[in-house]
Amino acid sequence: MVMDGAGNLRDIGEPEIDGTFLASGGVARVREALQRDSLPVIDAEGLRVGAPVARPGKIVCIGLNFSDHAAESGLEVPAEPVVFMKASNTVVGPYDEVLVPRGSVKTDWEVELAVVIGRRASYLGSREEALDAVAGYAVSNDVSEREFQLERGGQWDKGKSCETFNPLGPWLVTADEVGDPQDLAMRVWVNGAPRQDGNSKNMIFDVAELVRYLSWFMVLDPGDVINTGTPAGVAMGLPGQPYLRAGDVMELEIEGLGRQRQIVGQA
Amino acid sequence: MVMDGAGNLRDIGEPEIDGTFLASGGVARVREALQRDSLPVIDAEGLRVGAPVARPGKIVCIGLNFSDHAAESGLEVPAEPVVFMKASNTVVGPYDEVLVPRGSVKTDWEVELAVVIGRRASYLGSREEALDAVAGYAVSNDVSEREFQLERGGQWDKGKSCETFNPLGPWLVTADEVGDPQDLAMRVWVNGAPRQDGNSKNMIFDVAELVRYLSWFMVLDPGDVINTGTPAGVAMGLPGQPYLRAGDVMELEIEGLGRQRQIVGQA
Repeated sequence: MVMDGAGNLRDIGEPEIDGTFLASGGVARVREALQRDSLPVIDAEGLRVGAPVARPGKIVCIGLNFSDHAAESGLEVPAEPVVFMKASNTVVGPYDEVLVPRGSVKTDWEVELAVVIGRRASYLGSREEALDAVAGYAVSNDVSEREFQLERGGQWDKGKSCETFNPLGPWLVTADEVGDPQDLAMRVWVNGAPRQDGNSKNMIFDVAELVRYLSWFMVLDPGDVINTGTPAGVAMGLPGQPYLRAGDVMELEIEGLGRQRQIVGQA
Repeated sequence: MVMDGAGNLRDIGEPEIDGTFLASGGVARVREALQRDSLPVIDAEGLRVGAPVARPGKIVCIGLNFSDHAAESGLEVPAEPVVFMKASNTVVGPYDEVLVPRGSVKTDWEVELAVVIGRRASYLGSREEALDAVAGYAVSNDVSEREFQLERGGQWDKGKSCETFNPLGPWLVTADEVGDPQDLAMRVWVNGAPRQDGNSKNMIFDVAELVRYLSWFMVLDPGDVINTGTPAGVAMGLPGQPYLRAGDVMELEIEGLGRQRQIVGQA
């Protein structure tokens, strides 16, 4: 599904937006088809909205990439990017239910700018090459269980990979349409109360540097997702630590990328 | 490819051994076809051997699961499993080249018993359910860059996901054919010199407990791989720390699962 210039939703005429689609010039194909006006308008009323990238090969996450979030976590601002991973079967649509895991009392939200990789990236030599490897951007909720992440021994991944823990979308906005990824307001409301209110300009390591840096530690493939870190205002850092409970409603928004809404359930 | 009772290699007659194959009863189908003697014998001479599971959805790794390896790493024996992740595009065949990453001086080997998941596992209630979710076992080399892992800030994943960092195979041996997964000798030689010499009976958390435990933190899907930890004898823990260099030869063996051999190259 793609939105045309007039705001109509149209069928992209391809099976799925995934790594194969992105690697094979899918964005250019759909853009050309839009210009030819050859894509049928669809009525999305009542349809479930899935994630805008199907089955990412991996989700790489950046920790402590906003100094205010590092401070609220009681941790130092890192000298180089903190990297961890999230199982890619955590991805759900932007309006799907998010489940508090069984035994959890510290389930938390994190609005993040998701970078979607469009071409294979390995040992990139410059920031320009890094930005060339980016297909586009999306809103990501890097849902986190703080006890599992920080108090159960070892590495953070343990609190990041529970079922439904990565709502993504609604839109994959292409890099050219986003313009400057380092000047986007990022906001979260929980049950209507404002929680996170940041801006991607405050990232310690920006998108170009993160993609370049990561490409020296792993091969980034088309369809891979990078969650680039969250600003202050997560439950862990707020007075009274208002962690998520079944029935809560999260709304997450990034300027130009749309808005998510999830009702919290119990696994 | 499957080996029959007489040691002949036969074409399995299915596109690939992957999550879909395992989830759809592929093992039983191949076993039945073997019994009917309906699978053609093939000559594998000169063919590259790929990993015995194609495109795992995720690779979950267990850290410090042998007390002797925890000691050589200078770290405490954990109270509960240490969990981290490895990008699944690190998987290569058992005889493929392993690349020392650019800028690396501490590339290390780790022989591990890989558990391959055969059915979806979530919130498992018992050790029996956990073992029922296991399709089989394979030899895994959890190649690790120690400087990236331990000295570059943050989480271990940074030193675990470089290109070619997870040789897997040669065989996926079904759980019933392995019998007891907790009594398998595990050995490594580098350039012919014995390095690791352990046994899966010395795992701190055994396979049944690991699968059960992990299923409370994430959904395990068919085709997912769990690297269950390595015994002592990695380069980091040996006198003089003989890390891998281009031209080195690694051989890794687990009792009943076969033997890997990788020549080390330079990225």
